[in-house]
Amino acid sequence: MNEPRRTALIAIDWGTTSARAYRIDAAGEVLTARSAPLGIQAIRDGRFADALDALLGEWRADPAPRIACGMIGSRQGWIEAPYVDCPADLAGLGRTLARTPGGELAVVPGARCRDAAGVPDVLRGEETQLAGALLPEDERLLAVLPGTHCKWARVERGRLLEFATFMTGELFAVLLEHSILGRMSDRPAAPTAGEGPAFARGVSRGLAGDGVTHAIFGARTLALAGELAPADVGDWLSGVLIGHEIHAARAWAATRDHTTGPIRVIGGDAIVRRYVGALGQAGVAAERGAADAAARGMFRIAQRAGLIH
Amino acid sequence: MNEPRRTALIAIDWGTTSARAYRIDAAGEVLTARSAPLGIQAIRDGRFADALDALLGEWRADPAPRIACGMIGSRQGWIEAPYVDCPADLAGLGRTLARTPGGELAVVPGARCRDAAGVPDVLRGEETQLAGALLPEDERLLAVLPGTHCKWARVERGRLLEFATFMTGELFAVLLEHSILGRMSDRPAAPTAGEGPAFARGVSRGLAGDGVTHAIFGARTLALAGELAPADVGDWLSGVLIGHEIHAARAWAATRDHTTGPIRVIGGDAIVRRYVGALGQAGVAAERGAADAAARGMFRIAQRAGLIH
Repeated sequence: MNEPRRTALIAIDWGTTSARAYRIDAAGEVLTARSAPLGIQAIRDGRFADALDALLGEWRADPAPRIACGMIGSRQGWIEAPYVDCPADLAGLGRTLARTPGGELAVVPGARCRDAAGVPDVLRGEETQLAGALLPEDERLLAVLPGTHCKWARVERGRLLEFATFMTGELFAVLLEHSILGRMSDRPAAPTAGEGPAFARGVSRGLAGDGVTHAIFGARTLALAGELAPADVGDWLSGVLIGHEIHAARAWAATRDHTTGPIRVIGGDAIVRRYVGALGQAGVAAERGAADAAARGMFRIAQRAGLIH
Repeated sequence: MNEPRRTALIAIDWGTTSARAYRIDAAGEVLTARSAPLGIQAIRDGRFADALDALLGEWRADPAPRIACGMIGSRQGWIEAPYVDCPADLAGLGRTLARTPGGELAVVPGARCRDAAGVPDVLRGEETQLAGALLPEDERLLAVLPGTHCKWARVERGRLLEFATFMTGELFAVLLEHSILGRMSDRPAAPTAGEGPAFARGVSRGLAGDGVTHAIFGARTLALAGELAPADVGDWLSGVLIGHEIHAARAWAATRDHTTGPIRVIGGDAIVRRYVGALGQAGVAAERGAADAAARGMFRIAQRAGLIH
């Protein structure tokens, strides 16, 4: 019988709506994971220590060092971990870890950059996923991290050069829930979205480029005309917004001469499938980033910081 | 003492949230106007006749013919006035007026077209404003009618060739009210918006073109960075969305070789000022359409329909 492997690190991906903890061994392998709906939005009166106890459960007694990334390090989180300016060495983010007041957690900083017009952009959590999804052979990488606020990132020799946020996920949600477009829909986008013809039709429309504030109105007019089923409105709209994002992000990368190599898509299964499909429609090679990229990233950052005994 | 001029037509611009009635003389001049918050959304159990009585008040006894335009002619209105397909003769829309069941009102139809991708687009009410804002010397006209759903329209020799809807107004409202962008704002866009530097900065960002779903995120990051005052978030965001609309609509018009002449902006004072300013920033000549364009349009349509005795 094998001896159970020892925990080298407890790593927590602690976001706005949920938290996920990983027990990781000295080889960087995830042994077990636990999650809870204890995102920072759910925590009242600053009771983060209690939330951490609840999240860790039986792991509470484990003496392994603990690290966290994500919104837990924001101004609304447990301790503010100030942004690191781009270009930023991803694995080296451990040089500026913040510490919660009672020493419970080391917290990875977010990153900040400015776009060509001088407007700032920020991310928090995605820097760690990028660190985890990097491969030894990556000289230059264009990656997308889909979500409420999708991030497109340019990485070169392990350094995050710059990134751009697209509000695709949040726009989709507010349009479907609060605008006239949702009135034609009889259900939210299906979990199988990205695999049906309505999504693909939407992507084509979004990829056509400029004028997304015109393009989305089709969710109403196609439905009124009987050319889009109420059940497909969500999938179609999701396709338009993702197609538009891909069009705009590729134009952004092109202005930086960053057009070589497949685009790495980093995130959960369902949304990654959607993006890989849409990128395929755009004629762009895409590949999946490592699953549990956040856990891998925290391990690398903790290692470099000398946090792992 | 002059004899009070006789009413030749009672014309009602009856929309989703409000209704406005005009008493017009035989020369087409508006004598008086009345309005009420009796848009079709406010009317329960199909009690349109009661709403009409309330709106008309003391005009109820006036025997002049009555015409209406706007959402009152939609499926959710009093009587559905089917869409006329583009190209559509604007003054000639009176050939297909609908009639309410009790004969209370003649109702102007909306218009329908398809864009280059074959996606349908619709408008209702704006066809009448266009008919009213046309000048005898207009050979060819590019017009914008700002609002919840902004319409850009191409008119040639009195015929509405095609149009495109941009959801600018509704997007602004849902983003400010329901998205993370609104959290940085401490008040809605001021009535003086379009006259301050925050609006102009937003317009510049929107005019830069593609990627509006990235550009709008600046409402959060600029505010976080202390580079946009909470009171200015709404004006800035309005500028970005209007700038983007102008960029996209001009590209749309250019694909039709429709780029000559000033753009006519048709609508209420405050929003027209905003668009004229933004068009100026884009280096495009703009001019104001007639005030009360809807009343003028209904007069012309009624005249052509032989409705005026």
